Amino acid sequence: MRNDDKKVKVGVIGASGYTGAELLRILHVHPYVSVVEMFAYRSAGRKLSEVFPHLSTGYGGCELEAYSLERELRADFYFLCVPHGHSHEIVPFLLEKGKRVIDLSADYRLKDSSLFESIYGVKHTSAELLKEAVYGMPELFYRKIKGARLVANPGCLARAAILSLAPLLMNRLIEGDSMIVIDAKTGVSGAGRKIRDDLMFSEMNEDMRPYSPVFHRHVSEIEQVAGELSDKKPEILFVPHIISIDRGIITTCYIKLSRKNTFTEAKETFAEFYGKSPFIRILAPENLPSVKRIRGSNLVEIAIVKGKDENSLIIFTCLDNLVSGASGNAIHCFNIMNQFDEDTCLSAIIPLYP
Amino acid sequence: MRNDDKKVKVGVIGASGYTGAELLRILHVHPYVSVVEMFAYRSAGRKLSEVFPHLSTGYGGCELEAYSLERELRADFYFLCVPHGHSHEIVPFLLEKGKRVIDLSADYRLKDSSLFESIYGVKHTSAELLKEAVYGMPELFYRKIKGARLVANPGCLARAAILSLAPLLMNRLIEGDSMIVIDAKTGVSGAGRKIRDDLMFSEMNEDMRPYSPVFHRHVSEIEQVAGELSDKKPEILFVPHIISIDRGIITTCYIKLSRKNTFTEAKETFAEFYGKSPFIRILAPENLPSVKRIRGSNLVEIAIVKGKDENSLIIFTCLDNLVSGASGNAIHCFNIMNQFDEDTCLSAIIPLYP
Amino acid sequence: MRNDDKKVKVGVIGASGYTGAELLRILHVHPYVSVVEMFAYRSAGRKLSEVFPHLSTGYGGCELEAYSLERELRADFYFLCVPHGHSHEIVPFLLEKGKRVIDLSADYRLKDSSLFESIYGVKHTSAELLKEAVYGMPELFYRKIKGARLVANPGCLARAAILSLAPLLMNRLIEGDSMIVIDAKTGVSGAGRKIRDDLMFSEMNEDMRPYSPVFHRHVSEIEQVAGELSDKKPEILFVPHIISIDRGIITTCYIKLSRKNTFTEAKETFAEFYGKSPFIRILAPENLPSVKRIRGSNLVEIAIVKGKDENSLIIFTCLDNLVSGASGNAIHCFNIMNQFDEDTCLSAIIPLYP
Amino acid sequence: MRNDDKKVKVGVIGASGYTGAELLRILHVHPYVSVVEMFAYRSAGRKLSEVFPHLSTGYGGCELEAYSLERELRADFYFLCVPHGHSHEIVPFLLEKGKRVIDLSADYRLKDSSLFESIYGVKHTSAELLKEAVYGMPELFYRKIKGARLVANPGCLARAAILSLAPLLMNRLIEGDSMIVIDAKTGVSGAGRKIRDDLMFSEMNEDMRPYSPVFHRHVSEIEQVAGELSDKKPEILFVPHIISIDRGIITTCYIKLSRKNTFTEAKETFAEFYGKSPFIRILAPENLPSVKRIRGSNLVEIAIVKGKDENSLIIFTCLDNLVSGASGNAIHCFNIMNQFDEDTCLSAIIPLYP
Repeated sequence: MRNDDKKVKVGVIGASGYTGAELLRILHVHPYVSVVEMFAYRSAGRKLSEVFPHLSTGYGGCELEAYSLERELRADFYFLCVPHGHSHEIVPFLLEKGKRVIDLSADYRLKDSSLFESIYGVKHTSAELLKEAVYGMPELFYRKIKGARLVANPGCLARAAILSLAPLLMNRLIEGDSMIVIDAKTGVSGAGRKIRDDLMFSEMNEDMRPYSPVFHRHVSEIEQVAGELSDKKPEILFVPHIISIDRGIITTCYIKLSRKNTFTEAKETFAEFYGKSPFIRILAPENLPSVKRIRGSNLVEIAIVKGKDENSLIIFTCLDNLVSGASGNAIHCFNIMNQFDEDTCLSAIIPLYP
Repeated sequence: MRNDDKKVKVGVIGASGYTGAELLRILHVHPYVSVVEMFAYRSAGRKLSEVFPHLSTGYGGCELEAYSLERELRADFYFLCVPHGHSHEIVPFLLEKGKRVIDLSADYRLKDSSLFESIYGVKHTSAELLKEAVYGMPELFYRKIKGARLVANPGCLARAAILSLAPLLMNRLIEGDSMIVIDAKTGVSGAGRKIRDDLMFSEMNEDMRPYSPVFHRHVSEIEQVAGELSDKKPEILFVPHIISIDRGIITTCYIKLSRKNTFTEAKETFAEFYGKSPFIRILAPENLPSVKRIRGSNLVEIAIVKGKDENSLIIFTCLDNLVSGASGNAIHCFNIMNQFDEDTCLSAIIPLYP
Repeated sequence: MRNDDKKVKVGVIGASGYTGAELLRILHVHPYVSVVEMFAYRSAGRKLSEVFPHLSTGYGGCELEAYSLERELRADFYFLCVPHGHSHEIVPFLLEKGKRVIDLSADYRLKDSSLFESIYGVKHTSAELLKEAVYGMPELFYRKIKGARLVANPGCLARAAILSLAPLLMNRLIEGDSMIVIDAKTGVSGAGRKIRDDLMFSEMNEDMRPYSPVFHRHVSEIEQVAGELSDKKPEILFVPHIISIDRGIITTCYIKLSRKNTFTEAKETFAEFYGKSPFIRILAPENLPSVKRIRGSNLVEIAIVKGKDENSLIIFTCLDNLVSGASGNAIHCFNIMNQFDEDTCLSAIIPLYP
Repeated sequence: MRNDDKKVKVGVIGASGYTGAELLRILHVHPYVSVVEMFAYRSAGRKLSEVFPHLSTGYGGCELEAYSLERELRADFYFLCVPHGHSHEIVPFLLEKGKRVIDLSADYRLKDSSLFESIYGVKHTSAELLKEAVYGMPELFYRKIKGARLVANPGCLARAAILSLAPLLMNRLIEGDSMIVIDAKTGVSGAGRKIRDDLMFSEMNEDMRPYSPVFHRHVSEIEQVAGELSDKKPEILFVPHIISIDRGIITTCYIKLSRKNTFTEAKETFAEFYGKSPFIRILAPENLPSVKRIRGSNLVEIAIVKGKDENSLIIFTCLDNLVSGASGNAIHCFNIMNQFDEDTCLSAIIPLYP
């Protein structure tokens, strides 16, 4: 492992899934990071490049270690890329040792441990940390992230949906009792690296399908954040669809503005709200988002389109589920927590096109 | 050209686009059809198999002729697969000669010629026929189709959306002043065979993008039919997205039921309404549609899913844009007009999987 | 199950894999076939349409039974679509009962049982039938197939390669001691329906890779047939590559003609050799094969191209691995065995394009 | 435009094609480069990010200028990404002004101007520079590149093929009078950004096809370099195939070793020859290349596999046509010409997976 005293010493726990790989792809070009430890379960003992041959450059030569609570930890900062339901057993130990942590799993996203338990089917063993954990949306919670010991990185679909709603919610532009419809489309890598027969190439290629309508796991995240931003919890109808492409999310949000507000106000709200974000592009009129234009990068494209009447609105939000929807956003939070420029190393990750 | 006195003599005008090719693929196995004429503009003088090598079997050996109003017509029944804005100049002449016609273009779909003209930018020269033209939805207008001289085949996205709404509209199950959201996803062949730089493989592959939000051409069709089925025109918010697959449409409709109705009623309405349709599959609970399962066939998969409360509802409708969304449905209408079994030859067109 | 006394009563053993599904898709439109029995291992007890929802039309409503040697058999003709290494235990029993059989597995393709055993790692328990089994290439062994009790359907890559070589081998046009290079490209469905992590969508999509170079299982089939057609076994170098598309094979064969022969002779040989085949298209000069043009059909496109000198030659052969490379060819053999027209029902299976 | 006195001032001529875009994507992270000028023909006057929205980060805000020979040039080093047949009119002028040039077009690759003219159908107006131009293969011509004023960047397929052959040719391991077969597979972006109806998504998706067999433009490049490396020009049979993926090339080379040499020697030759290259990975036995593992990077995977006998050999070479096959390799040459570390900025361009 490379080391450099002036750099932040970083450890990655769960380096053999897609979010772990993506994290290491991007951290490789981070000027102030030295990844000094990588842990994996099944792949322990192998080189990273054996598990992910595309990482032969960069950290590929490093060996994946078996994680153990007993051993001494060499890093100061940890990214957890383990499956949902595993972080909550590791995080308390890391915090106790004085480490800072960004958890890419779902374990610390929901403030209500019983809600987590009913969704993920796992008893939460460190619920006392839920209050402290900061939900890692830099566009909303920059200051909290800056001072956090523990950041819960958002779910990919939740992040896209929240980016669509936040400016409207915070400024009370949404009609009070209206239903918010969120129709999401996601590439296949959003399902992670686990083996599933319905995701075999011959089954999935050239297909699209809805899945988990209404009760997808990310809905609770969206509702929780919406509740924090607004005075009352809006009613959300959320339906994701899986699409036979590798990467990319588009959420299409259908919204009813409150009667006293106009489309122009809504549009200006977005421009202002995201004006300082280094990654969010509010598209010009007549320009609509395209997954391929942001693929592989931390960029987010947002378009605001007027519905049929003055009070209906459509918000398109487009991002790469593995970057802005996972590892790129985690590094964004990391930069904030360490007082680096927000786009450090992320500005070097330009979309791959075509 | 093959001929057989007992068969219906069929002519195809505009045989060099995707809907023309698909029509000829399917008609090839129609036991009571003999295609005796094929016309094309730019490709006139070439064999069909030169324009569409995949049709080397079947009608591939036939020559495409230049269409002319002067020449004697050999067929009794015509399918028009010409671009929008061209049929209205041909159809009056065909009807005058005593032919029956199914028009796959948009020219006779809208009853209001000024609406047509504003959408398609073409002056309608046979608006007097709009009243007579029957909108070719066999599930709704079986009897009218049976007696029609002129059938206007629905737009692919319109057909999917109308199938989602019709049972609810006819039975007054939708809340009166609610907004109906229709989020549509379509494969690339829906854009036809014209050359467009944004649809080059390198630009389109692995991409998805919204297009023509709110004011897509098919919205007027949906609204017109909805108005006919119900006492009042519902408010519809329609947004299509193009997806990098060859074929397939999924429309996701978000609906508010009227307060006096229940989800169970809505579900039963679908089961009953489509009970006799040979092509529509109302999926069992927990089963959701998949484009790949219906690809290449005239089948339609519909799933009805309960929203968060008793009164919200999601309808998924899935069909192949070139078959049930175009040529297959046209042949369905043809079968009805000729009093053949509805599924004649269409039951032989089984989905291609994988 | 449908039945009709005038039709051939057919049974399918192993109906839950891709070749079984494809067989049932095509047999559905066979006018002289009634599928009266379907067997499966793990899926026994389920309806076919539960295992393959795309077959809801056709035989979808039929139940898959658990195969047992004890029970009485209702069919007269059996297709075996079981995995390699299982047919050899079933076939002797079927023949004994007076049934005719087409085996789509590899079990009866190779005449040399020890070669089979070394390749497939299974002891052959009915090696005495290997001599009787006819290799199911209708273009080469029409007469033998006609009179056969047991036909071994060729491997998909082997069939493509043999079609490329047969006219040259039979007419002694290949230079005696030259190496024949066969570079094959195949879609992913060629790997069958088994779960493999390297064939998950996220791993396979947008990829291509060579696999099993030199010693692929199909090489022995090619060599065996080449040896039968020619006086001496040619030296073959065979390398397959998997390509991220659903279906389709292209083999590119690089051949050295014997010095006394010319390119023109070679070309004429192909035209003559395949002149009567209902499925093989020898392409005109300047026209090269394309997988998409034959996808879903039993068609084969062959192009013969001159190398740099008078004596080198390239043969491109293109077919659908699941149709001409498996189930379609099996039905072709079935038609011959039952003295139906060769293209019965297969001429109705037109390629799906786009 | 950004500028920095310590950096090399770079100009890009022809910035609106795929190689131009890819060059700018990578140069964005080059620590010692400042792109001070960008020229384009049709897109002049527009911002780069309007032509390539994925480049909104980086050089996206810069304006494309119309190229003119009269105006003063601000850069010291020029990359030419113009179509074949245009560079030869620009380069003499640039050299005269004391600029150094890497030409990504074909204009200076072939030493024989009449050969160029017959292949590209254009009269070469600066043939006197052909002798001076260095063929930009860093693995072969490092020293010449280091001192060059004008580098001709190789064709993508040519580069892959030459990498496969060079170690064998230089060490005289190939049987003298044997035919070398090169079967190439390439993604669609290799065809560039021009509009072609056969490359529309609906025509190309899920397809594969051979094209330009035997006489592809890159053959002359391969033969020329092979002639330089070896005492005699080997006989090459080259056939490319286009595959429906965005990026990636695999060349499969079939080679006859001279009788006195062994497979082991051949393998060791590769290991030694490419031992110091920062981008070439000689794969371990049993590991075969995969396009997806190198996509978006300058990496090259090479596998050497034994044929059936001691003297036949298969070389697989895999690279990204737009990076190692074009812009990445050009930057590699640029680094050498400017005495930067060979992998400057290129080591930051890690493959995008999945």
